[in-house]
Amino acid sequence: QSTAAPVDGSVALAVVPGDGIGPEVTAEALKVLEVAAPAGVKFEQTRYDLGAERYLATHEVLPDSVLAEIRQHDAILLGAVGGKPNDPNLPPGILERGLLLRLRFELDHYVNLRPSRIYPGAVSPLSDAVLGKGEVDFVVVREGTEGPYTGNGGALRVGTPAEVATEVSVNTAYGVERVIRDAFARAQRRPRKKLTLVHKTNVLVNAGSLWWRLFEEVAAEFPDVTTDYCHIDAVMIFLATDPQRFDVIVTDNLFGDIVTDLAAAITGGIGLAASGNVNPDRTAPSMFEPVHGSAPDIAGQLIADPTAAILSGALLLDHLGHPEAAARIETAVIEDLAARTPGAKRSTPEVGDAIAARVAG
Amino acid sequence: QSTAAPVDGSVALAVVPGDGIGPEVTAEALKVLEVAAPAGVKFEQTRYDLGAERYLATHEVLPDSVLAEIRQHDAILLGAVGGKPNDPNLPPGILERGLLLRLRFELDHYVNLRPSRIYPGAVSPLSDAVLGKGEVDFVVVREGTEGPYTGNGGALRVGTPAEVATEVSVNTAYGVERVIRDAFARAQRRPRKKLTLVHKTNVLVNAGSLWWRLFEEVAAEFPDVTTDYCHIDAVMIFLATDPQRFDVIVTDNLFGDIVTDLAAAITGGIGLAASGNVNPDRTAPSMFEPVHGSAPDIAGQLIADPTAAILSGALLLDHLGHPEAAARIETAVIEDLAARTPGAKRSTPEVGDAIAARVAG
Ligand SMILES: CC(C)[C@H](C(=O)O)[C@@H](O)C(=O)O
Ligand SMILES: CC(C)[C@H](C(=O)O)[C@@H](O)C(=O)O
Repeated sequence: QSTAAPVDGSVALAVVPGDGIGPEVTAEALKVLEVAAPAGVKFEQTRYDLGAERYLATHEVLPDSVLAEIRQHDAILLGAVGGKPNDPNLPPGILERGLLLRLRFELDHYVNLRPSRIYPGAVSPLSDAVLGKGEVDFVVVREGTEGPYTGNGGALRVGTPAEVATEVSVNTAYGVERVIRDAFARAQRRPRKKLTLVHKTNVLVNAGSLWWRLFEEVAAEFPDVTTDYCHIDAVMIFLATDPQRFDVIVTDNLFGDIVTDLAAAITGGIGLAASGNVNPDRTAPSMFEPVHGSAPDIAGQLIADPTAAILSGALLLDHLGHPEAAARIETAVIEDLAARTPGAKRSTPEVGDAIAARVAG
Repeated sequence: QSTAAPVDGSVALAVVPGDGIGPEVTAEALKVLEVAAPAGVKFEQTRYDLGAERYLATHEVLPDSVLAEIRQHDAILLGAVGGKPNDPNLPPGILERGLLLRLRFELDHYVNLRPSRIYPGAVSPLSDAVLGKGEVDFVVVREGTEGPYTGNGGALRVGTPAEVATEVSVNTAYGVERVIRDAFARAQRRPRKKLTLVHKTNVLVNAGSLWWRLFEEVAAEFPDVTTDYCHIDAVMIFLATDPQRFDVIVTDNLFGDIVTDLAAAITGGIGLAASGNVNPDRTAPSMFEPVHGSAPDIAGQLIADPTAAILSGALLLDHLGHPEAAARIETAVIEDLAARTPGAKRSTPEVGDAIAARVAG
């Protein structure tokens, strides 16, 4: 399998820089990846121009042939995709569903991994009273291939006063169990060994019962992991007032989307939030991307913070079996954050250079 | 119609104290309501014992005959319902769906109104840097009768490894348009006249297109209202870093549930968050309740903060056509909050007494 952790030094890397600030931050992530790679590991990059620009020029979103090529790689590094807001030539969701979600679904990225840590020096919007309670360091394991993201549902009598539109959240024992098991395993590897299930079991009782049942079943296999349950609405309150309580969170695709953006906000903003779309079975390449979008409003100015993309590169290295190299990147980011002068502005490449230099040296 | 704003002074009020801290906070809300009521207005209360205790004793959730009686009232004041977490005798969702949501659906509470204001003296978990940007004062208009809350969906092969469970979000032009129109009207009555639609149109394209289309259509009738759109995940970031940007938010039932708990957290906690389940057409009584739950862990100790229930009483008075009386309660709460000594503990009745005394004046 080309997607197993490579034993020789060559890593086939598909790079999808995307739109807006995507290419800018991807360049820095690649710069740092090259420096961090263990001796002998070499990235063989193939670039794929996909995203809003390609769609507007060619009406192609993700041709099957391109998907087939991408599938042959060891990993994927993605910048960000998305055009100008409300561009009339970009139908709503076409890139999200046709490109980003299609990659996640086709490559079976069922673990959407989003570490959430408040690094020293990061600017959190939370008060000192909340931050003073202790270190914030949790991981969200968001299901990536089911739930309300399946594109099920439809609409009837569109455009009329009698329109009915539905969205169907599809949850399977197969899909829910595997992501829960992955989350338990991750919790077991962490010092606190605590896993919180997030759902809305009191309203969404069909899906909720399935998640709850499998959570309890898999918990029996991990007796050393402490378990906890929170409704999605209560999580909002805890993330704002007591984020320290979380260690690992497992949740569905849509709740995970919402929780991770709040997690990103409280831990210092989406400028820092990295993510991995992981296929733990390695039947296809995993994909690493910053949580932020293409930010067309600031594109071309080289002012975007590439840290989230750089940290996504660390997740990529970790996934490929190079945890020490990943840790070197994270340490370099921590040092860089601590050294940042509030108010001082550095360009995107300056931040990349500074982090690369710390990794090198 | 018994549910129109009463012209004579008699208000038929159905009181559902509920479980846990519900009865404790409801008592204080009633105390303040009595004092605040304009001269000549008298509340004729009927108490309905509904909730976990009743269910555990009788297996009744909401008998049709009780619902029929409640329907004859001018308004409903609800405390909180819910038993001990994970009580094996309480099937998940039975009270939520059978009582709370059934009332909202049967009485057509399509506007779930949740004002979100940071009062001076309230303890927000946000940093001074965020709070320093200006006053936070917005209202969430949450759709209350559709979306993922309809109980549509089901499960197949339950309890087996082949289980499939679905939840269907149902959105109708009828239901979406009326709540959007209500939100526009509310925005128009506020100084900033700004309305933000919150959804996830890039993924939930069927429902998203419907909400988007009707938002644009109704906007044309309110040319003086500024409009804005945010994805639900982006709202998480804005509520944590720039809540000042919001004036009125309109969104679906589930997104509204999530947004309003975060709104409650940042504005000082669910101890303060009031809500109205409003039937703007007055075809059935509206229901007013604190956003918080029954908090069985602190029930019986008289330490719950009744402020959210008291403010829900203010929303009730406003709905019944007594805006000045409602404003007197809100002013008394603001004064009480400003006078609170951090760390000092008052009992539930002490808080109620203090606010009632200020209303009395
Ligand atoms: C762009 C969008 C489809 C995507 C999602 O909702 O998953 C994004 O918000 C994310 O979190 O990666
Ligand atoms: C208890 C629950 C059914 C309810 C909801 O989800 O609407 C509550 O969270 C609320 O916000 O009023």
